[in-house]
Amino acid sequence: MTTTQGEPVTVAMVQALETRLRHCEDQLALYQLIMTYGPAVDSGSSEVASRLWSEEGLYDAQVGSWSGRQAIAGMIEGPAHQALIHGGAAHVAAMPLLSIEEDTAFATCYFHLYVRDGDGFRPWRVTATRWEFVRQPEGWRITSRVNRLLDGGREARELLARGVE
Amino acid sequence: MTTTQGEPVTVAMVQALETRLRHCEDQLALYQLIMTYGPAVDSGSSEVASRLWSEEGLYDAQVGSWSGRQAIAGMIEGPAHQALIHGGAAHVAAMPLLSIEEDTAFATCYFHLYVRDGDGFRPWRVTATRWEFVRQPEGWRITSRVNRLLDGGREARELLARGVE
Amino acid sequence: MTTTQGEPVTVAMVQALETRLRHCEDQLALYQLIMTYGPAVDSGSSEVASRLWSEEGLYDAQVGSWSGRQAIAGMIEGPAHQALIHGGAAHVAAMPLLSIEEDTAFATCYFHLYVRDGDGFRPWRVTATRWEFVRQPEGWRITSRVNRLLDGGREARELLARGVE
Repeated sequence: MTTTQGEPVTVAMVQALETRLRHCEDQLALYQLIMTYGPAVDSGSSEVASRLWSEEGLYDAQVGSWSGRQAIAGMIEGPAHQALIHGGAAHVAAMPLLSIEEDTAFATCYFHLYVRDGDGFRPWRVTATRWEFVRQPEGWRITSRVNRLLDGGREARELLARGVE
Repeated sequence: MTTTQGEPVTVAMVQALETRLRHCEDQLALYQLIMTYGPAVDSGSSEVASRLWSEEGLYDAQVGSWSGRQAIAGMIEGPAHQALIHGGAAHVAAMPLLSIEEDTAFATCYFHLYVRDGDGFRPWRVTATRWEFVRQPEGWRITSRVNRLLDGGREARELLARGVE
Repeated sequence: MTTTQGEPVTVAMVQALETRLRHCEDQLALYQLIMTYGPAVDSGSSEVASRLWSEEGLYDAQVGSWSGRQAIAGMIEGPAHQALIHGGAAHVAAMPLLSIEEDTAFATCYFHLYVRDGDGFRPWRVTATRWEFVRQPEGWRITSRVNRLLDGGREARELLARGVE
Protein backbone atom coordinates (compact mmCIF):
# COMPACT_ATOMS: atom_id res chain seq x y z
CA MET A 1 0.00 0.00 0.00
CA THR A 2 1.53 3.31 -1.10
CA THR A 3 2.29 6.08 1.36
CA THR A 4 1.76 8.97 -1.02
CA GLN A 5 -0.72 11.09 0.87
CA GLY A 6 -1.91 12.93 -2.22
CA GLU A 7 -2.95 9.79 -4.06
CA PRO A 8 -6.69 9.08 -4.03
CA VAL A 9 -8.02 6.05 -2.17
CA THR A 10 -9.54 3.64 -4.68
CA VAL A 11 -12.44 1.26 -4.24
CA ALA A 12 -10.05 -1.56 -5.10
CA MET A 13 -7.88 -0.69 -2.07
CA VAL A 14 -10.86 -0.81 0.24
CA GLN A 15 -12.13 -4.03 -1.33
CA ALA A 16 -8.78 -5.70 -0.83
CA LEU A 17 -8.97 -4.84 2.87
CA GLU A 18 -12.53 -6.11 3.04
CA THR A 19 -11.54 -9.47 1.56
CA ARG A 20 -8.78 -9.88 4.14
CA LEU A 21 -11.07 -8.77 6.95
CA ARG A 22 -13.73 -11.24 5.86
CA HIS A 23 -11.20 -14.06 6.09
CA CYS A 24 -10.41 -13.06 9.70
CA GLU A 25 -14.12 -12.88 10.49
CA ASP A 26 -14.64 -16.34 9.02
CA GLN A 27 -11.81 -17.80 11.09
CA LEU A 28 -13.22 -16.21 14.25
CA ALA A 29 -16.77 -17.30 13.42
CA LEU A 30 -15.65 -20.91 13.01
CA TYR A 31 -13.85 -20.75 16.36
CA GLN A 32 -17.10 -19.58 17.91
CA LEU A 33 -19.13 -22.31 16.24
CA ILE A 34 -16.80 -25.09 17.41
CA MET A 35 -16.65 -23.68 20.94
CA THR A 36 -20.45 -23.67 21.15
CA TYR A 37 -20.68 -27.44 20.87
CA GLY A 38 -19.33 -28.38 24.32
CA PRO A 39 -21.36 -25.92 26.42
CA ALA A 40 -24.47 -26.83 24.40
CA VAL A 41 -24.25 -30.60 24.88
CA ASP A 42 -23.02 -30.46 28.47
CA SER A 43 -26.00 -28.29 29.40
CA GLY A 44 -28.41 -30.49 27.45
CA SER A 45 -29.23 -27.62 25.08
CA SER A 46 -30.17 -29.99 22.28
CA GLU A 47 -31.72 -27.35 20.04
CA VAL A 48 -28.68 -25.08 20.16
CA ALA A 49 -26.31 -27.99 19.62
CA SER A 50 -28.20 -29.56 16.74
CA ARG A 51 -28.58 -26.22 14.95
CA LEU A 52 -24.80 -25.99 14.66
CA TRP A 53 -25.25 -28.54 11.89
CA SER A 54 -26.89 -27.95 8.53
CA GLU A 55 -30.35 -29.48 8.26
CA GLU A 56 -28.98 -32.78 6.93
CA GLY A 57 -25.56 -32.59 8.56
CA LEU A 58 -23.78 -35.70 9.76
CA TYR A 59 -22.23 -36.49 13.13
CA ASP A 60 -20.13 -39.63 13.06
CA ALA A 61 -18.76 -40.02 16.58
CA GLN A 62 -17.44 -43.56 15.99
CA VAL A 63 -19.40 -44.82 19.03
CA GLY A 64 -22.53 -43.79 17.11
CA SER A 65 -23.57 -41.87 14.02
CA TRP A 66 -26.44 -39.41 13.59
CA SER A 67 -27.70 -37.86 10.39
CA GLY A 68 -29.64 -34.59 10.45
CA ARG A 69 -30.48 -32.11 13.19
CA GLN A 70 -33.35 -34.16 14.57
CA ALA A 71 -31.22 -37.24 15.10
CA ILE A 72 -28.46 -35.20 16.71
CA ALA A 73 -30.92 -33.51 19.07
CA GLY A 74 -32.35 -36.92 19.90
CA MET A 75 -28.92 -38.24 20.85
CA ILE A 76 -28.42 -35.31 23.25
CA GLU A 77 -31.85 -35.83 24.81
CA GLY A 78 -31.35 -39.60 24.98
CA PRO A 79 -30.56 -41.65 28.10
CA ALA A 80 -26.88 -42.30 27.39
CA HIS A 81 -25.95 -38.64 26.98
CA GLN A 82 -28.20 -37.56 29.85
CA ALA A 83 -26.59 -40.12 32.17
CA LEU A 84 -23.19 -38.79 31.15
CA ILE A 85 -23.92 -35.14 31.92
CA HIS A 86 -25.79 -35.91 35.14
CA GLY A 87 -22.85 -38.01 36.30
CA GLY A 88 -20.40 -35.19 35.55
CA ALA A 89 -18.89 -34.77 32.10
CA ALA A 90 -17.10 -32.21 29.95
CA HIS A 91 -16.97 -32.33 26.15
CA VAL A 92 -13.97 -30.11 25.41
CA ALA A 93 -12.77 -29.14 21.95
CA ALA A 94 -9.15 -28.07 21.71
CA MET A 95 -8.34 -25.06 19.55
CA PRO A 96 -8.80 -26.10 15.91
CA LEU A 97 -6.66 -25.78 12.82
CA LEU A 98 -8.83 -24.23 10.09
CA SER A 99 -8.88 -24.22 6.33
CA ILE A 100 -11.32 -21.87 4.60
CA GLU A 101 -12.18 -21.74 0.87
CA GLU A 102 -14.85 -19.15 0.06
CA ASP A 103 -18.07 -20.80 1.22
CA THR A 104 -16.73 -24.09 2.56
CA ALA A 105 -14.25 -24.81 5.29
CA PHE A 106 -12.90 -27.62 7.41
CA ALA A 107 -11.27 -27.86 10.81
CA THR A 108 -9.07 -30.42 12.51
CA CYS A 109 -8.74 -30.61 16.25
CA TYR A 110 -8.49 -32.80 19.31
CA PHE A 111 -11.59 -33.46 21.30
CA HIS A 112 -11.71 -34.60 24.93
CA LEU A 113 -14.41 -36.23 26.97
CA TYR A 114 -13.70 -35.95 30.69
CA VAL A 115 -15.85 -37.82 33.16
CA ARG A 116 -16.09 -37.47 36.91
CA ASP A 117 -13.92 -40.01 38.71
CA GLY A 118 -13.66 -40.00 42.51
CA ASP A 119 -12.71 -36.49 43.62
CA GLY A 120 -11.29 -35.70 40.19
CA PHE A 121 -11.82 -36.39 36.50
CA ARG A 122 -10.68 -38.94 33.96
CA PRO A 123 -9.93 -38.22 30.28
CA TRP A 124 -12.03 -41.05 28.98
CA ARG A 125 -11.96 -40.34 25.26
CA VAL A 126 -9.38 -38.31 23.32
CA THR A 127 -10.23 -38.17 19.65
CA ALA A 128 -9.04 -36.64 16.42
CA THR A 129 -11.95 -34.69 14.99
CA ARG A 130 -12.61 -33.36 11.50
CA TRP A 131 -15.33 -30.76 11.00
CA GLU A 132 -16.61 -29.73 7.58
CA PHE A 133 -18.60 -26.52 7.15
CA VAL A 134 -20.71 -24.68 4.64
CA ARG A 135 -21.58 -20.99 4.67
CA GLN A 136 -25.36 -20.62 4.82
CA PRO A 137 -27.46 -17.43 4.83
CA GLU A 138 -27.61 -17.56 8.66
CA GLY A 139 -23.89 -18.28 9.05
CA TRP A 140 -21.48 -21.23 9.02
CA ARG A 141 -22.99 -24.66 9.69
CA ILE A 142 -21.45 -28.13 10.12
CA THR A 143 -22.08 -30.51 7.22
CA SER A 144 -20.00 -33.31 8.69
CA ARG A 145 -18.18 -34.05 11.90
CA VAL A 146 -16.13 -37.22 12.32
CA ASN A 147 -14.36 -38.34 15.53
CA ARG A 148 -11.76 -41.10 15.65
CA LEU A 149 -10.24 -42.35 18.90
CA LEU A 150 -6.48 -41.82 19.26
CA ASP A 151 -5.95 -45.44 20.22
CA GLY A 152 -2.98 -46.00 17.94
CA GLY A 153 -5.11 -47.12 15.01
CA ARG A 154 -4.74 -45.89 11.45
CA GLU A 155 -8.01 -44.01 11.16
CA ALA A 156 -7.18 -41.22 13.60
CA ARG A 157 -3.73 -40.75 12.07
CA GLU A 158 -5.23 -40.51 8.60
CA LEU A 159 -7.81 -37.99 9.76
CA LEU A 160 -5.06 -35.82 11.27
CA ALA A 161 -2.85 -36.19 8.19
CA ARG A 162 -5.66 -34.90 5.94
CA GLY A 163 -5.87 -31.80 8.12
CA VAL A 164 -2.26 -30.78 7.51
CA GLU A 165 -1.78 -31.86 3.88
CA MET B 1 -19.44 -3.33 -1.66
CA THR B 2 -19.59 -2.12 -5.25
CA THR B 3 -16.91 -2.93 -7.78
CA THR B 4 -17.31 0.23 -9.84
CA GLN B 5 -13.76 1.54 -9.90
CA GLY B 6 -14.75 5.08 -10.76
CA GLU B 7 -17.01 5.52 -7.74
CA PRO B 8 -15.45 7.47 -4.87
CA VAL B 9 -14.67 5.76 -1.59
CA THR B 10 -16.85 7.22 1.14
CA VAL B 11 -16.07 7.70 4.80
CA ALA B 12 -19.07 5.48 5.56
CA MET B 13 -17.45 2.58 3.68
CA VAL B 14 -14.27 2.90 5.68
CA GLN B 15 -16.19 3.27 8.94
CA ALA B 16 -18.14 0.09 8.24
CA LEU B 17 -14.86 -1.77 7.84
CA GLU B 18 -13.50 -0.19 11.02
CA THR B 19 -16.52 -1.38 13.02
CA ARG B 20 -16.05 -4.93 11.77
CA LEU B 21 -12.31 -4.80 12.41
CA ARG B 22 -12.86 -3.55 15.94
CA HIS B 23 -15.09 -6.54 16.63
CA CYS B 24 -12.30 -8.90 15.51
CA GLU B 25 -9.81 -7.00 17.65
CA ASP B 26 -12.12 -7.29 20.65
CA GLN B 27 -12.50 -11.03 20.17
CA LEU B 28 -8.72 -11.46 19.89
CA ALA B 29 -8.08 -9.18 22.90
CA LEU B 30 -10.43 -11.25 25.05
CA TYR B 31 -8.67 -14.45 23.96
CA GLN B 32 -5.41 -12.86 25.07
CA LEU B 33 -6.83 -11.76 28.41
CA ILE B 34 -8.19 -15.21 29.25
CA MET B 35 -4.98 -16.92 28.18
CA THR B 36 -2.96 -14.66 30.48
CA TYR B 37 -4.62 -16.03 33.59
CA GLY B 38 -3.02 -19.50 33.65
CA PRO B 39 0.60 -18.46 33.01
CA ALA B 40 0.18 -15.63 35.55
CA VAL B 41 -1.10 -17.76 38.43
CA ASP B 42 1.12 -20.77 37.72
CA SER B 43 4.19 -18.52 37.84
CA GLY B 44 2.94 -16.75 40.97
CA SER B 45 2.71 -13.43 39.11
CA SER B 46 0.04 -12.14 41.43
CA GLU B 47 0.16 -8.54 40.20
CA VAL B 48 -0.30 -9.52 36.55
CA ALA B 49 -3.07 -11.96 37.40
CA SER B 50 -5.02 -9.64 39.70
CA ARG B 51 -4.82 -6.77 37.20
CA LEU B 52 -6.79 -8.85 34.70
CA TRP B 53 -9.77 -7.93 36.89
CA SER B 54 -11.29 -4.51 37.29
CA GLU B 55 -10.47 -2.83 40.60
CA GLU B 56 -13.50 -4.33 42.33
CA GLY B 57 -13.83 -7.44 40.16
CA LEU B 58 -15.07 -10.72 41.60
CA TYR B 59 -13.55 -14.18 41.41
CA ASP B 60 -15.93 -16.87 42.63
CA ALA B 61 -14.04 -20.15 42.23
CA GLN B 62 -16.59 -22.18 44.23
CA VAL B 63 -13.82 -23.45 46.55
CA GLY B 64 -13.36 -19.81 47.55
CA SER B 65 -14.43 -16.34 46.54
CA TRP B 66 -12.35 -13.16 46.31
CA SER B 67 -13.55 -9.64 45.72
CA GLY B 68 -11.23 -6.98 44.31
CA ARG B 69 -7.67 -7.08 42.98
CA GLN B 70 -6.06 -7.08 46.39
CA ALA B 71 -7.97 -10.15 47.56
CA ILE B 72 -7.24 -11.97 44.32
CA ALA B 73 -3.52 -11.19 44.57
CA GLY B 74 -3.60 -12.35 48.19
CA MET B 75 -5.08 -15.69 47.17
CA ILE B 76 -2.27 -16.22 44.64
CA GLU B 77 0.38 -15.30 47.21
CA GLY B 78 -1.28 -17.42 49.89
CA PRO B 79 -0.09 -20.82 51.16
CA ALA B 80 -2.71 -22.98 49.39
CA HIS B 81 -1.97 -21.65 45.92
CA GLN B 82 1.78 -21.57 46.55
CA ALA B 83 1.73 -25.21 47.68
CA LEU B 84 -0.16 -26.10 44.52
CA ILE B 85 2.28 -24.50 42.11
CA HIS B 86 5.36 -25.71 43.97
CA GLY B 87 3.96 -29.23 43.90
CA GLY B 88 3.35 -29.03 40.14
CA ALA B 89 0.12 -27.59 38.75
CA ALA B 90 -1.35 -26.20 35.55
CA HIS B 91 -4.39 -23.90 35.42
CA VAL B 92 -5.49 -24.33 31.81
CA ALA B 93 -8.36 -22.43 30.18
CA ALA B 94 -9.86 -24.09 27.12
CA MET B 95 -10.67 -21.87 24.15
CA PRO B 96 -13.67 -19.71 25.12
CA LEU B 97 -16.96 -18.94 23.44
CA LEU B 98 -17.36 -15.15 23.42
CA SER B 99 -20.23 -12.70 23.30
CA ILE B 100 -19.41 -9.02 22.84
CA GLU B 101 -21.80 -6.06 23.12
CA GLU B 102 -20.06 -2.71 22.66
CA ASP B 103 -18.28 -2.17 25.98
CA THR B 104 -19.26 -5.33 27.83
CA ALA B 105 -18.66 -8.95 26.99
CA PHE B 106 -18.83 -12.40 28.47
CA ALA B 107 -17.12 -15.71 27.82
CA THR B 108 -17.95 -19.32 28.58
CA CYS B 109 -15.28 -21.98 28.67
CA TYR B 110 -13.99 -25.08 30.39
CA PHE B 111 -11.21 -24.70 32.87
CA HIS B 112 -8.83 -27.45 33.98
CA LEU B 113 -6.61 -27.80 36.99
CA TYR B 114 -3.98 -30.49 36.47
CA VAL B 115 -1.79 -31.55 39.37
CA ARG B 116 1.38 -33.63 39.40
CA ASP B 117 0.65 -37.27 40.16
CA GLY B 118 3.44 -39.86 40.14
CA ASP B 119 5.29 -39.60 36.81
CA GLY B 120 2.26 -37.94 35.17
CA PHE B 121 -0.59 -35.57 35.91
CA ARG B 122 -4.14 -35.79 37.14
CA PRO B 123 -7.04 -33.60 35.98
CA TRP B 124 -8.20 -32.71 39.46
CA ARG B 125 -10.80 -30.08 38.69
CA VAL B 126 -12.72 -29.56 35.43
CA THR B 127 -15.08 -26.61 35.72
CA ALA B 128 -17.51 -24.62 33.64
CA THR B 129 -16.39 -21.00 33.81
CA ARG B 130 -18.20 -17.77 33.03
CA TRP B 131 -16.18 -14.59 32.59
CA GLU B 132 -17.77 -11.14 32.41
CA PHE B 133 -15.81 -8.19 31.07
CA VAL B 134 -15.97 -4.43 30.79
CA ARG B 135 -13.99 -2.25 28.40
CA GLN B 136 -11.89 0.18 30.43
CA PRO B 137 -9.54 2.93 29.16
CA GLU B 138 -6.58 0.52 29.50
CA GLY B 139 -8.40 -2.36 27.82
CA TRP B 140 -10.79 -5.18 28.70
CA ARG B 141 -10.97 -6.21 32.35
CA ILE B 142 -12.81 -9.01 34.20
CA THR B 143 -15.70 -7.83 36.36
CA SER B 144 -16.75 -11.33 37.36
CA ARG B 145 -15.46 -14.84 36.96
CA VAL B 146 -17.44 -17.81 38.25
CA ASN B 147 -16.30 -21.49 38.19
CA ARG B 148 -18.61 -24.42 38.80
CA LEU B 149 -17.36 -28.00 38.99
CA LEU B 150 -18.70 -30.35 36.31
CA ASP B 151 -19.70 -32.92 38.90
CA GLY B 152 -23.15 -33.58 37.44
CA GLY B 153 -24.83 -30.88 39.51
CA ARG B 154 -27.24 -28.29 38.18
CA GLU B 155 -25.10 -25.21 38.68
CA ALA B 156 -22.48 -26.04 36.05
CA ARG B 157 -25.14 -27.02 33.51
CA GLU B 158 -26.99 -23.75 34.10
CA LEU B 159 -23.80 -21.75 33.71
CA LEU B 160 -23.08 -23.46 30.38
CA ALA B 161 -26.68 -23.06 29.21
CA ARG B 162 -26.52 -19.28 29.80
CA GLY B 163 -23.46 -19.14 27.57
CA VAL B 164 -25.26 -20.57 24.54
CA GLU B 165 -28.72 -19.06 24.95
CA MET C 1 -12.42 8.38 12.74
CA THR C 2 -14.60 11.34 11.78
CA THR C 3 -18.21 10.93 10.78
CA THR C 4 -18.32 13.89 8.42
CA GLN C 5 -19.61 12.29 5.25
CA GLY C 6 -18.32 15.04 3.00
CA GLU C 7 -14.72 14.70 4.11
CA PRO C 8 -12.50 12.75 1.72
CA VAL C 9 -11.08 9.41 2.72
CA THR C 10 -7.31 9.68 2.99
CA VAL C 11 -4.68 7.06 2.29
CA ALA C 12 -3.55 7.47 5.89
CA MET C 13 -6.98 6.37 7.14
CA VAL C 14 -6.87 3.25 5.04
CA GLN C 15 -3.30 2.52 6.05
CA ALA C 16 -4.18 2.78 9.71
CA LEU C 17 -6.87 0.14 9.18
CA GLU C 18 -4.45 -2.04 7.23
CA THR C 19 -1.93 -1.95 10.09
CA ARG C 20 -4.59 -3.04 12.57
CA LEU C 21 -5.87 -5.72 10.21
CA ARG C 22 -2.37 -7.06 9.70
CA HIS C 23 -1.98 -7.45 13.45
CA CYS C 24 -5.18 -9.54 13.57
CA GLU C 25 -3.96 -11.62 10.64
CA ASP C 26 -0.64 -12.21 12.39
CA GLN C 27 -2.38 -13.35 15.57
CA LEU C 28 -4.60 -15.73 13.60
CA ALA C 29 -1.68 -17.02 11.53
CA LEU C 30 0.28 -17.85 14.69
CA TYR C 31 -2.74 -19.69 16.10
CA GLN C 32 -2.82 -21.73 12.89
CA LEU C 33 0.89 -22.47 13.02
CA ILE C 34 0.79 -23.70 16.63
CA MET C 35 -2.32 -25.81 15.98
CA THR C 36 -0.61 -27.52 13.05
CA TYR C 37 2.05 -29.10 15.26
CA GLY C 38 -0.13 -31.69 17.03
CA PRO C 39 -1.96 -33.08 13.99
CA ALA C 40 1.35 -33.16 12.11
CA VAL C 41 3.34 -35.15 14.68
CA ASP C 42 0.46 -37.43 15.69
CA SER C 43 -0.01 -38.42 12.05
CA GLY C 44 3.72 -38.85 11.52
CA SER C 45 3.76 -36.01 8.96
CA SER C 46 7.40 -35.24 9.65
CA GLU C 47 7.88 -32.92 6.68
CA VAL C 48 4.89 -30.75 7.59
CA ALA C 49 5.89 -30.65 11.25
CA SER C 50 9.55 -29.85 10.68
CA ARG C 51 8.73 -27.10 8.17
CA LEU C 52 6.92 -25.21 10.95
CA TRP C 53 10.42 -24.34 12.10
CA SER C 54 12.89 -22.09 10.34
CA GLU C 55 15.72 -23.98 8.63
CA GLU C 56 17.92 -23.85 11.74
CA GLY C 57 15.13 -23.66 14.31
CA LEU C 58 15.48 -25.27 17.73
CA TYR C 59 13.16 -27.65 19.54
CA ASP C 60 14.16 -28.13 23.18
CA ALA C 61 11.58 -30.53 24.60
CA GLN C 62 13.52 -31.12 27.85
CA VAL C 63 13.42 -34.91 27.24
CA GLY C 64 15.46 -34.21 24.11
CA SER C 65 16.65 -31.32 21.97
CA TRP C 66 16.78 -31.07 18.17
CA SER C 67 18.37 -28.35 16.10
CA GLY C 68 17.21 -27.73 12.52
CA ARG C 69 14.43 -29.13 10.39
CA GLN C 70 16.28 -32.32 9.52
CA ALA C 71 16.84 -33.25 13.17
CA ILE C 72 13.23 -32.47 14.06
CA ALA C 73 11.94 -34.59 11.17
CA GLY C 74 14.28 -37.38 12.28
CA MET C 75 12.85 -37.30 15.79
CA ILE C 76 9.31 -37.68 14.41
CA GLU C 77 10.36 -40.57 12.17
CA GLY C 78 12.38 -42.19 14.97
CA PRO C 79 11.38 -45.27 16.98
CA ALA C 80 10.42 -43.48 20.21
CA HIS C 81 7.92 -41.13 18.58
CA GLN C 82 6.59 -43.85 16.26
CA ALA C 83 6.00 -46.18 19.23
CA LEU C 84 4.14 -43.37 20.96
CA ILE C 85 1.74 -42.63 18.11
CA HIS C 86 1.17 -46.31 17.27
CA GLY C 87 0.35 -46.95 20.92
CA GLY C 88 -2.17 -44.09 20.99
CA ALA C 89 -1.07 -40.54 21.75
CA ALA C 90 -2.24 -36.95 21.42
CA HIS C 91 0.08 -33.93 21.45
CA VAL C 92 -2.32 -31.12 22.32
CA ALA C 93 -1.41 -27.44 22.49
CA ALA C 94 -3.70 -25.29 24.59
CA MET C 95 -4.68 -21.89 23.21
CA PRO C 96 -1.59 -19.66 23.36
CA LEU C 97 -0.96 -16.19 24.69
CA LEU C 98 0.80 -14.23 21.92
CA SER C 99 3.11 -11.25 21.74
CA ILE C 100 3.87 -9.83 18.29
CA GLU C 101 6.49 -7.18 17.40
CA GLU C 102 6.66 -6.48 13.67
CA ASP C 103 8.57 -9.47 12.28
CA THR C 104 9.17 -11.44 15.45
CA ALA C 105 6.73 -12.92 17.93
CA PHE C 106 6.53 -15.30 20.85
CA ALA C 107 3.83 -17.42 22.39
CA THR C 108 3.32 -19.02 25.79
CA CYS C 109 1.00 -21.94 26.30
CA TYR C 110 0.40 -25.23 28.02
CA PHE C 111 1.13 -28.39 26.13
CA HIS C 112 -0.31 -31.83 26.90
CA LEU C 113 0.78 -35.29 25.94
CA TYR C 114 -2.01 -37.81 26.46
CA VAL C 115 -1.28 -41.51 26.08
CA ARG C 116 -3.65 -44.41 25.81
CA ASP C 117 -4.22 -46.08 29.19
CA GLY C 118 -6.67 -48.98 29.54
CA ASP C 119 -10.01 -47.90 28.07
CA GLY C 120 -9.12 -44.24 28.54
CA PHE C 121 -6.19 -41.84 28.41
CA ARG C 122 -3.59 -40.52 30.80
CA PRO C 123 -2.18 -36.95 30.78
CA TRP C 124 1.43 -38.07 30.92
CA ARG C 125 3.19 -34.77 30.37
CA VAL C 126 1.84 -31.26 31.00
CA THR C 127 4.41 -28.64 30.11
CA ALA C 128 4.82 -24.90 29.93
CA THR C 129 5.90 -24.08 26.37
CA ARG C 130 7.50 -21.00 24.89
CA TRP C 131 7.50 -20.55 21.13
CA GLU C 132 9.57 -17.90 19.35
CA PHE C 133 8.79 -16.96 15.77
CA VAL C 134 10.20 -15.00 12.86
CA ARG C 135 8.30 -13.73 9.84
CA GLN C 136 9.83 -15.22 6.71
CA PRO C 137 8.84 -14.66 3.07
CA GLU C 138 6.66 -17.82 3.16
CA GLY C 139 5.07 -16.92 6.52
CA TRP C 140 5.76 -17.24 10.24
CA ARG C 141 8.22 -19.92 11.29
CA ILE C 142 9.39 -21.19 14.70
CA THR C 143 12.95 -20.22 15.62
CA SER C 144 12.80 -21.79 19.07
CA ARG C 145 10.42 -23.91 21.06
CA VAL C 146 11.14 -24.82 24.67
CA ASN C 147 9.02 -27.14 26.88
CA ARG C 148 9.41 -27.40 30.64
CA LEU C 149 7.48 -29.91 32.73
CA LEU C 150 5.10 -28.42 35.31
CA ASP C 151 6.53 -30.58 38.06
CA GLY C 152 6.81 -27.81 40.62
CA GLY C 153 10.33 -26.85 39.57
CA ARG C 154 11.53 -23.33 38.93
CA GLU C 155 12.15 -23.61 35.20
CA ALA C 156 8.52 -23.94 34.16
CA ARG C 157 7.45 -21.10 36.46
CA GLU C 158 10.15 -18.85 35.02
CA LEU C 159 9.12 -19.71 31.47
CA LEU C 160 5.50 -18.80 32.26
CA ALA C 161 6.52 -15.61 34.09
CA ARG C 162 8.45 -14.41 31.01
CA GLY C 163 5.29 -14.83 28.96
CA VAL C 164 3.26 -12.41 31.05
CA GLU C 165 5.89 -9.82 31.96
